[in-house]
Amino acid sequence: MNTNDGEIGLSSYPLPIQVGRRRMAIFAEDCFSPLGAKTAVCLIRYVPDEIVAVIDSTQAPSTVQDKLGFGGAVPIISSVAEAVALGADVFVLGTAPRGGLPTAVEIDAVAEALESGLHVMHGMHRFLGDDPELSALAEANEALIWDVRRPPALLAVSSGEPRSDCRVVMTVGSDCNTGKMTVGMELVLALRAEGIRAGFASSGQTGMMITGRGIPIDAVVADFLGGATEALVAGTAPGNDVVILEGQGSILHPGYAGVTIGMIAGALPHGLILCHQPTRKVIRNYQVAIPPLSELVNLYRSAVGGIYEPPVIGIALNTFDMCEDAARTAVETAERETGLPSTDPIRVGSDALVDGILRINR
Amino acid sequence: MNTNDGEIGLSSYPLPIQVGRRRMAIFAEDCFSPLGAKTAVCLIRYVPDEIVAVIDSTQAPSTVQDKLGFGGAVPIISSVAEAVALGADVFVLGTAPRGGLPTAVEIDAVAEALESGLHVMHGMHRFLGDDPELSALAEANEALIWDVRRPPALLAVSSGEPRSDCRVVMTVGSDCNTGKMTVGMELVLALRAEGIRAGFASSGQTGMMITGRGIPIDAVVADFLGGATEALVAGTAPGNDVVILEGQGSILHPGYAGVTIGMIAGALPHGLILCHQPTRKVIRNYQVAIPPLSELVNLYRSAVGGIYEPPVIGIALNTFDMCEDAARTAVETAERETGLPSTDPIRVGSDALVDGILRINR
Repeated sequence: MNTNDGEIGLSSYPLPIQVGRRRMAIFAEDCFSPLGAKTAVCLIRYVPDEIVAVIDSTQAPSTVQDKLGFGGAVPIISSVAEAVALGADVFVLGTAPRGGLPTAVEIDAVAEALESGLHVMHGMHRFLGDDPELSALAEANEALIWDVRRPPALLAVSSGEPRSDCRVVMTVGSDCNTGKMTVGMELVLALRAEGIRAGFASSGQTGMMITGRGIPIDAVVADFLGGATEALVAGTAPGNDVVILEGQGSILHPGYAGVTIGMIAGALPHGLILCHQPTRKVIRNYQVAIPPLSELVNLYRSAVGGIYEPPVIGIALNTFDMCEDAARTAVETAERETGLPSTDPIRVGSDALVDGILRINR
Repeated sequence: MNTNDGEIGLSSYPLPIQVGRRRMAIFAEDCFSPLGAKTAVCLIRYVPDEIVAVIDSTQAPSTVQDKLGFGGAVPIISSVAEAVALGADVFVLGTAPRGGLPTAVEIDAVAEALESGLHVMHGMHRFLGDDPELSALAEANEALIWDVRRPPALLAVSSGEPRSDCRVVMTVGSDCNTGKMTVGMELVLALRAEGIRAGFASSGQTGMMITGRGIPIDAVVADFLGGATEALVAGTAPGNDVVILEGQGSILHPGYAGVTIGMIAGALPHGLILCHQPTRKVIRNYQVAIPPLSELVNLYRSAVGGIYEPPVIGIALNTFDMCEDAARTAVETAERETGLPSTDPIRVGSDALVDGILRINR
């Protein structure tokens, strides 16, 4: 379980519980919502059978279904103690805050979970496994801490060579938190449903928690951004005809544009899928206006224009906050404005995008 | 000496010898040349009075002047022992290899230097101060190791706000190793000669070794690329009317494009100076062709086009490998093709670029 794939490879799931058999309690205190606890919501969407409870005392008692409209009877509870009583064996921090620092409340909850013998999985930039008190607690209780965002030790500068053994498709966004991870997962599932061998290259903590492998690209030292992305794709390619690479950040984001560009230049994907939330007009927490989709498609196409120009092959809209009519109109408008296949993969399905991926010429 | 500027701030020079009073021996074994040992050559150019010798047994005995055409009587010698005999107190690794790993020969030399009580300064990605053997040697001999590329502990995501208290000018390049650091230093010196208060924001190991401060941007975790650049500029701005920000990488470089873009998006400079070596037609070690300068100017202008479009205000050519006539022609051609002030700051001087900087409207 705790091995890397080759010399320069993926971070793999180090907890002594197989992916698929975990009993996770997700901590999302005072923030359990689609935008407030992205990691929590994505785990519920893709590995619901492994979730025993969500901890958010401000919304307990309730169910995940009540809050999200999916997730079934997974209960929302008030405390770590209740999670232990429900048989949880892994405690997960369900947030992915800007800056990646856990709150005091989160750290206290981690300590309580470790005291109860639960393993801990989290995606903060601050490595809890390096905290002397928490690591002592873990050791005393035979629990492990997976610092998901700890990058692999061995990385290289990228080669500049595009892959020729599979199609590489990268999800990119108008902003953070527009659905790049979710769209990627949906595309992999949809491709597999068509009998296509597709793999998901997780570049972020949530995808890594779901799949048990990947590289936390935004935690890699900047010089190795391209090389780490190339290694992530290389580690996902074997046995697959299509690799869906989860993008990070956005070229419109003053803080994260470098990560986005570094990934495109490193992976040299054959196509991009642009993820966008139609109701969002400005980058969250910033003054940057999101331009019309057709313009954004051109910006992405030319984002590393001196190196090559990857085609944008489809638009994935995130319409969770729109009514049915408005969502349908948004999809039609996107398709008309950009001339590209457009859909909301969650609401409508991914067929339009799958067709585009299969038409890519390497 | 060993303090940071505020909570989120610059890495500062931690050796117990004041900048300006060091007696440095620079190790450039089997590679002492302008392209082979960039760090060595730049230290010789900007702090020649602090260099007692260059160690390269393949070129010893000789002088730096003989090899570079500048640097005066600084001797090229064969061994660490000779450097000790010459009174060296700081041992510097003079290379900055792709990937940032020291060779076995370099590590042996570091060990020998530490055994002789010399402090060690190096810009590798691998932190020699974390090596148990080397750190034990350092302690036993009361020597210190400055891992220049160790980033500050506290960093933040960038704010997206351009500075209004000073002009920020960033040097960018057609490739790595085209003169971004050197041009930056020349501009600072030229601005100061005009009585302008100008500061140099070192983003790389060599500039940091010269000035004793800065942030090793390419060693920062990718999420904080923009924020670290913003902090670097903020730490340089006080007391200055112009900040010259040393850029990294190139938007044409598959491995490093993300670093370049992350810096532009984080610093939001008011103007860019494009550095280029006219004889270079292709990115070193890659298959990417360097486009005509006018096209590259447009690529840089639109590189973060969804956020803002910084003007390119001048071209700095690195003509060290051209004869006088060819160099003059290259400057004239660059000026005609781009319509921008062009010069080789080392060969001709920086006046043309200084004028452009002073004309920037904030």
